[in-house]
Parts: sequence; structure tokens; C-alpha cells
Amino acid sequence: MVAADNLQKTPQEATFNLLAYLKERQKICEAALDKAIPIIYPEKIYESMRYSLLAGGKRLRPILCLATCEMMGGTIEMAMPAACAVEMIHTMSLIHDDLPAMDNDDYRRGKLTNHKIYGDAVAILAGDGLLAYAFEMVATQTPDSVPKDRVLQVVARLGRALGAAGLVGGQVVDLDSEGKLDISLETLTFIHNHKTAALLEACVVCGGIIAGASPEDVQRLTRYSQNIGLAFQIVDDILDITATTEQLGKSAGKDLTAKKVTYPSLWGIEESRTKAQQLIEAACAELKPFGKPAQPLEAIAHFITSRNN
Amino acid sequence: MVAADNLQKTPQEATFNLLAYLKERQKICEAALDKAIPIIYPEKIYESMRYSLLAGGKRLRPILCLATCEMMGGTIEMAMPAACAVEMIHTMSLIHDDLPAMDNDDYRRGKLTNHKIYGDAVAILAGDGLLAYAFEMVATQTPDSVPKDRVLQVVARLGRALGAAGLVGGQVVDLDSEGKLDISLETLTFIHNHKTAALLEACVVCGGIIAGASPEDVQRLTRYSQNIGLAFQIVDDILDITATTEQLGKSAGKDLTAKKVTYPSLWGIEESRTKAQQLIEAACAELKPFGKPAQPLEAIAHFITSRNN
Repeated sequence: MVAADNLQKTPQEATFNLLAYLKERQKICEAALDKAIPIIYPEKIYESMRYSLLAGGKRLRPILCLATCEMMGGTIEMAMPAACAVEMIHTMSLIHDDLPAMDNDDYRRGKLTNHKIYGDAVAILAGDGLLAYAFEMVATQTPDSVPKDRVLQVVARLGRALGAAGLVGGQVVDLDSEGKLDISLETLTFIHNHKTAALLEACVVCGGIIAGASPEDVQRLTRYSQNIGLAFQIVDDILDITATTEQLGKSAGKDLTAKKVTYPSLWGIEESRTKAQQLIEAACAELKPFGKPAQPLEAIAHFITSRNN
Repeated sequence: MVAADNLQKTPQEATFNLLAYLKERQKICEAALDKAIPIIYPEKIYESMRYSLLAGGKRLRPILCLATCEMMGGTIEMAMPAACAVEMIHTMSLIHDDLPAMDNDDYRRGKLTNHKIYGDAVAILAGDGLLAYAFEMVATQTPDSVPKDRVLQVVARLGRALGAAGLVGGQVVDLDSEGKLDISLETLTFIHNHKTAALLEACVVCGGIIAGASPEDVQRLTRYSQNIGLAFQIVDDILDITATTEQLGKSAGKDLTAKKVTYPSLWGIEESRTKAQQLIEAACAELKPFGKPAQPLEAIAHFITSRNN
């Protein structure tokens, strides 16, 4: 939920109803994801993939992908396969991260985690299956109106965002850092740039590429997404301390229990909030040249610091 | 190792030195794989990916991909990124399948399995990382001489061969079947068509697509690869009974211990051998229209039934 005062921060934002926008976009993303993976034999693996993929969530990543494509003059249809793909990749990273061998989490989005329902083996395979389908979907479902070289750029960026240079690399360093109290700001930033910002960047930049963004535009979109990515993580760390388990839909206070170094543990909560706000402002500055069509991306940036789950 | 009499089965084969061919191709595949994943920070994940990717093996899958591309008039350079990708996907499936949550294997290719060295968490992530890099590599490293729509078809086929409609689906049914003695031939065939044949098919067909194979050629390549895929699995089942752990480089007699239904358990060893031989002959019949350039694919097909590891 977004507090009303955050939606009316600037005159420009006041004219844009973010809540209604997000709700409508969530709905079309849910419908596309639901359609993407029908249940066939062997049912269990499809059910397991769908269990996590359709477990709700803000759908921020696909919405960012669609919004950027539209801002750059493309259509929702052009970006929908890529939007579904980023959500599948995100979901696979959650399923694998929650495994007993990793973060060992029992709850996610207020529901039992995938392996608690289907067992570790199927959960691992469900992640692999989602990942495979993400690439297949981009390659086969992106409409012909998108030139093939752009689609290949999307495949390349999704692969990079997901692999050792992205999510996977971030999670390895994160696991290594657990229980260590002497983690540097540099390491912490590496973790979050890879675990969170890399995929957010891919969402935004792929949306732009699909619509034919110029190299200069891609640079702007990259800076926008890196800034919101880091802000997103700082807010996540703050929420882990200040929010309840009920609000988060996952265990609160996890970082403290796991003795994780976080931004608030390095900077304090107030300083972390200020920093997040500055990052959001820097992100929005990158959008200025795009004018009014940038409204959704601006509002989403502000939403990131104002959210409470 | 290939017995000499198998190499001289027909006059045509006698003119082709398969052992020398495989050895040379293994060498260039090893070099390409070695170059594909350099070690950077965080070193552990790259080391873990390389540990399994460079652990030897016959490199049959990338060799099939390169050989098919050449047979259809393409070059090794055109198909090398796809060839590396199939080996990465194959390696990731081995890493994940060996995990304690799955088949719980301690040895693979005569070496400790990935999770025995790096732990379960890193092994899961190394698989994810290899998978991500497989797609990134095809998308970014395939030379410009290959039209982009062909590269996208390769991405799509790799995704399909890997996902719930391929490897992942096969592994789910395989896990479900363990310990059950009433598995039907239909279920057994589903498992192997998905766990083994799907990726072999992708190797062969992707090699063809990269070189510009016609839809009719793709049909022939599909039938060739499905036949060798099933033969490959039948021979694997036979070797599990007849070969030693030393020959296999992995635990022998596993299927019996796990009370797995296999082709030899359904048909007996002799009947299984005959069936594998028939499949190889059917596979080679599909190659007839391609003439002499089909020699490597023919010889590889015969090699599959004659191998002892």
C-alpha cells in the first residue's frame, strides 16, 4: 500500500494515479503469467512452477519492463514476453534462495515456500524450469514487430543479470558474508548491485531495447535502474527492521537474527532513509528528457521508498 | 574407447578415423569451454562452475552440434557458442541431479561431485550460473554470419530441451518412479526422451539450424537424434549392469540398488542390445541424403552402441 501523501509529493505526480496504474498492470501481468504455464503431464512440476510464479507479489519487475517499453514508444504486447521472463527469473531466484541449503526460509509472500510444499528436489527443478521457460518465452513469443537483434540483446541481458555476473554472483557473496560482522560497504554494495539491482536494470533496459532505445537512452535507463535498485535494497533492509512479519509476508528481523550487515546497520535508519531518497531523486533526474511519458517510471521510483512491504 | 571391429563395420566407416576425430574435437571443445568462463570475483562460483564444466567427459553433445553444422555446410566457428551452451546445460543438469535432494551422488566422471567440494548452496548456484551463461553465450558470441532469427531458434530450442518439456520434466518423472517396480514402458520412454534424447536432439538440430537447414532437413535431424538418444539411454542402462565403477567413472549398479526399472530389466540385456542396434540403423538411414559429409554423425551413432563408458 502507498500512503496518500507519497502519491502527491509533486504536482506532476498528483496527476498520475499510481495505485490504479499498478493495480491494472498487475492484473495484466498475472493474466499473462497464468497463461504462460499451463498444467500438463508431469503435472507436479508445472504445479510447482505455478505455485511460486502466481503467489502474488507486487510484479514490480514486469511492470517496470512494460512501462519502459511504453515510455520509449513501444507497446505492452512487444514487451510482455520479456516482462513474464523477468518475473520467472525473479521467482526462480526466490525458490532457490529459500531452499534449506541456502537461506532456509519457510515462508514467502505469506505462503509456505516452494520446497515446503513440493520438497527440495522439485523446488530445485521448478526453478530450473522457470529459468528455461523465461528464455524460451522471449525467443518464441516476442512479436515479429520487434527486430530479432533486439530480442537477442534481451536474451543476452537476461542471461547476464541472472548469472555469476548478476543474481548468482550476488547470492554467493551474500551466503559467504552471513555471520561475518566485518563486511565492508564495498562488499555490501556488490551483493545488492548483483542480487537486486542487476535484474531491475535488466527489466528497465530490456523494455527500452525492445522499443528501440538509442545507446544514449540505454545509458540513462541503466543509471535510473541502478539508482532505484540500490534504493530498493536499502528500503528492504529498513523494512526488515521496522516492519512486522505480517506486513512483509516473510519473516521479519531475519537480518538481525542472521547477524547480517545491512545498510541500516552501517548507517543507521535515518541516514539510510535519506540515502534512499537521494538515490530516487537521482534516478528521476535521468528521466527528465523523456517528458510526460516518464510519469509511471517516476512514480514507481518514489513508490519504492514509500512502500511498507 | 571404441573396439576396432566397431570402427570397421562398413567400408564407408573404415575410411573415417572416429577416434582421431573425437580426440581432435574434444580438444577444441575443451579449449572453447575453458575460455568461456574465466575466474573473476567472486572466485568461488566461477571455480565451482569450471570444476564441473571442465571435468572431462566425452563432449559428445558439443561434438554432435559442431558435426551437424559442418554436415549442413556451416563452420565450427558458427556453431561453437551453441556447442558450449549445450555442454553447459548438460553440466548444470548433472550438478543439480547429483545433489543430496535429488540422486545424492558422491562421484561423477571419477571425481567428487560439485556439492561434495563446494557445498549444496554453491552447487545449486553453479548450475544456475552455467544455465544463464549458456543462453548469454549463444546470444552474444554467435558470429554475425549466422542470421539472428536462427540464433533465436537456437535459444528457443535450448530452453525447451532444458525445461519442463525436456530435462526438468524427465527428471521429475524419474524421481517419482524410483523404488516403484510397476513403471510402464511408456513412462520409462517418457523419462529418457526427456532426460536424454531432448538435449541430444537440441544439439543436432541447433547445429543444423545454425547452418540453415531446411524444415525437411530439420525433420531428418530430429529423427536421427531421437533414435540415437534412445539408443544412448538403453546402452547406459546396460552399462550400469555390465560395466565396473572404474570404467564408468560413476557408481555402477546404481539402478539395481535404487530398484529402478530400466530397459534391460524390462527386456533383458540381449534384447536391449538388439533394440539399441536397430535404433542406430534407423538413425543412420536418416543421414543417407547428406552423403559423405554425414560420415562423422554416422560414426558417432555407431560409437554410441559400442562404447563401454
